[in-house]
Amino acid sequence: MPKTDATHDPKRRSWVDSANGHPEFPIQNLPLGVFVPPGGGAPRGGVAIGDFILDLAAAHAAGLFRGEAAAAAEAASGPALNDLFALGAAPRAALRARLSELLALDSAERARVEPCLHRAEDCTMQLPARIGDYTDFYAGIHHATNTGRQFRPDNPLLPNYKYVPIAYHGRSSSVVPSGTPVRRPNGQRKPGRETTPSFGPSRNLDYELELGIWMGPGNALGTPIPISEAGERIAGFCLLNDWSARDIQGWEYQPLGPFLGKNFCTTISPWVITPEALAPFRVAQPPRAEDDPAPMDYLLDAADQREGALDLELEVLLITPGLREKGLPPHRLALSNARHLYWTPAQLVAHHACGGCNLQPGDLFGSGTISGPEESSFGSLLETTQGGRKPLQLASGETRRFLEDGDEVILRAHARREGYASIGFGECRGTVQPAP
Amino acid sequence: MPKTDATHDPKRRSWVDSANGHPEFPIQNLPLGVFVPPGGGAPRGGVAIGDFILDLAAAHAAGLFRGEAAAAAEAASGPALNDLFALGAAPRAALRARLSELLALDSAERARVEPCLHRAEDCTMQLPARIGDYTDFYAGIHHATNTGRQFRPDNPLLPNYKYVPIAYHGRSSSVVPSGTPVRRPNGQRKPGRETTPSFGPSRNLDYELELGIWMGPGNALGTPIPISEAGERIAGFCLLNDWSARDIQGWEYQPLGPFLGKNFCTTISPWVITPEALAPFRVAQPPRAEDDPAPMDYLLDAADQREGALDLELEVLLITPGLREKGLPPHRLALSNARHLYWTPAQLVAHHACGGCNLQPGDLFGSGTISGPEESSFGSLLETTQGGRKPLQLASGETRRFLEDGDEVILRAHARREGYASIGFGECRGTVQPAP
Repeated sequence: MPKTDATHDPKRRSWVDSANGHPEFPIQNLPLGVFVPPGGGAPRGGVAIGDFILDLAAAHAAGLFRGEAAAAAEAASGPALNDLFALGAAPRAALRARLSELLALDSAERARVEPCLHRAEDCTMQLPARIGDYTDFYAGIHHATNTGRQFRPDNPLLPNYKYVPIAYHGRSSSVVPSGTPVRRPNGQRKPGRETTPSFGPSRNLDYELELGIWMGPGNALGTPIPISEAGERIAGFCLLNDWSARDIQGWEYQPLGPFLGKNFCTTISPWVITPEALAPFRVAQPPRAEDDPAPMDYLLDAADQREGALDLELEVLLITPGLREKGLPPHRLALSNARHLYWTPAQLVAHHACGGCNLQPGDLFGSGTISGPEESSFGSLLETTQGGRKPLQLASGETRRFLEDGDEVILRAHARREGYASIGFGECRGTVQPAP
Repeated sequence: MPKTDATHDPKRRSWVDSANGHPEFPIQNLPLGVFVPPGGGAPRGGVAIGDFILDLAAAHAAGLFRGEAAAAAEAASGPALNDLFALGAAPRAALRARLSELLALDSAERARVEPCLHRAEDCTMQLPARIGDYTDFYAGIHHATNTGRQFRPDNPLLPNYKYVPIAYHGRSSSVVPSGTPVRRPNGQRKPGRETTPSFGPSRNLDYELELGIWMGPGNALGTPIPISEAGERIAGFCLLNDWSARDIQGWEYQPLGPFLGKNFCTTISPWVITPEALAPFRVAQPPRAEDDPAPMDYLLDAADQREGALDLELEVLLITPGLREKGLPPHRLALSNARHLYWTPAQLVAHHACGGCNLQPGDLFGSGTISGPEESSFGSLLETTQGGRKPLQLASGETRRFLEDGDEVILRAHARREGYASIGFGECRGTVQPAP
């Protein structure tokens, strides 16, 4: 298992009371983000601790950091974390170690740190970085199988799937932070029963449950990243909802892939969960089927095989107008786990760069939809309702083939392991608005 | 035909002698770019005039502009033209009008302008803007037909082609200016005769002849751009070589489209040819076949139908090591024309934004490969050599299925029309380097 240290000690408690036992942000997490403080002001880097956000610029100005931690805090003081991502693992880990000391119950610095805290509910979260390029992978093998089965029942996975970490380039401009309304797109649709397409609001609006991966230090154009170094290039993780208009996608996607069916909106959770915070939750890549090919050399690394995957519980909740009106709890659409991914995050990085494509700090990857093997773990309505043929029945009496206006989708993630404090990702949520 | 004015007068001559009769940059062109001046220094905006570049920051500092032209010159004084693109058509046209006066033979300001000129050959051109997102369309119907025929001889065009301006998102980080070496990518390849894929240098490296389109003022997320306004949102045009590794692309692209087969490099010509400079060369969209569907309403505009296309001659030249050694002239791979595009630039903009995707100043579109109907006008080797089955014979005695290391591809574009001065785009060139 990757190295853990005092920052992972489950017994470490914080003088920020709400952090102790916090389901998302105990002192063992310390995720990074960009926030606007209460009352407005310039966006700046911060760290979530319980129900509070620590202002990194203010803490840095107060002289609370030295050496590499100071360099990291300084790089995180502006309106985007790209500069911090570019520094790589060591300064980020030094910042984490120092933050853990400063926020620990026995800290001698509480009086100097406390003025740097804001109540999180009074702050506004923004995107944590300027996204250079956004790439969406297809590494969820159960999703690829389930969707492939709808077109090719006997041979759901295409021949390249187990060799190539399949991906396409997505749209970076329309990636938005959790809470941003999601406007239903208009577009060309041609259901099979119609002979010509028509233009109008998507009738098959869907969500996709994905893990987001933030790039740290990149590579020069023409210079690949070896798989042995690929994991270290990752700056952190988030949740990602790859909203999808299935009818628009189905009509447009041949032969060049998804375009307007996806680029109207992608929602991410605003906190960057660091590789350091996730170290206790690394697990071996799931064993491949006996007749699966071994990963090619450029994707094969012993340490990555041993501990390159993440054991991360993923949950999807749906709140409809009917559930809301009747005071009923959210409907759980899926409970899945990031360990179902066929490729590790490091393999995605190494593949992306293997032909020389240059990755840059602040680039964002989506993992692809992470469905598990059972129906209760399917990470899209396309799978859960079999393309709308098996509508969902909700406790409110409503049914759903796909998402309706007013529906809200919430993604959550939690890492749990015996002997360690559980940590969470915070929420990735969005509510569907009517088409213009 | 769009409005032309004194800046288009073919009789207007410049006191910059080399501009008069210049095949690319006479006083009627005045394209915008970003250059590093001789001896180094900060990159800045400039205008090509004959064999010289006018430094816009220096000219602005010398007080040569007023009003909207001054606002445009100021926005073009930094290391990227995004701010100028954001201003839209009127300030850009005012800048053009003033530049045309300042550089005209009868200018009273020659003595103040002359110190702002640099010899172009002593400058280094850079990308003209920070590219937010890069989108590659597929609007060349002859290319779509030719490539489709290789897979589906009886039905080369897919059913959506004549309804949807097909596109996919490309990689913005690997877009480079003309002259940047092009590294042959490694990747997974699986020729039909082999049963499993292997990893290594692409064996089928190709070029694609495309028109590049720079976005000006964009749209807010969720708010489409009406077709009647779409043309005005374009800041300018360039040449674009969408280098393609056909073997990598062929193995990876199902089901989500091109990825590593394209993202290793895209070369563009560095000068932004403005819509104002191209006004005399607008033509009607070519008539559709009788049984083609009419464009849907959101893509249909009378003015766009009448004058939304561009009459622009496109040329591709190949220089191989053998031709170079023997002192033979370049081999012309293709002579095509931008009027062969099935969709106008305005239709590409309106389609891209119709579902609410937000476009931003400095976004770049590729048109798709612009082949004409005859073999001599095919804009890729995939078409010219029929996927390598009909190798090219060169005067040097060499043959080519696809590009070899050391080959240089040069794209050129010229607009010519009776009664107007011809203008050119400058070159888009790149030489293939061996795989790492």
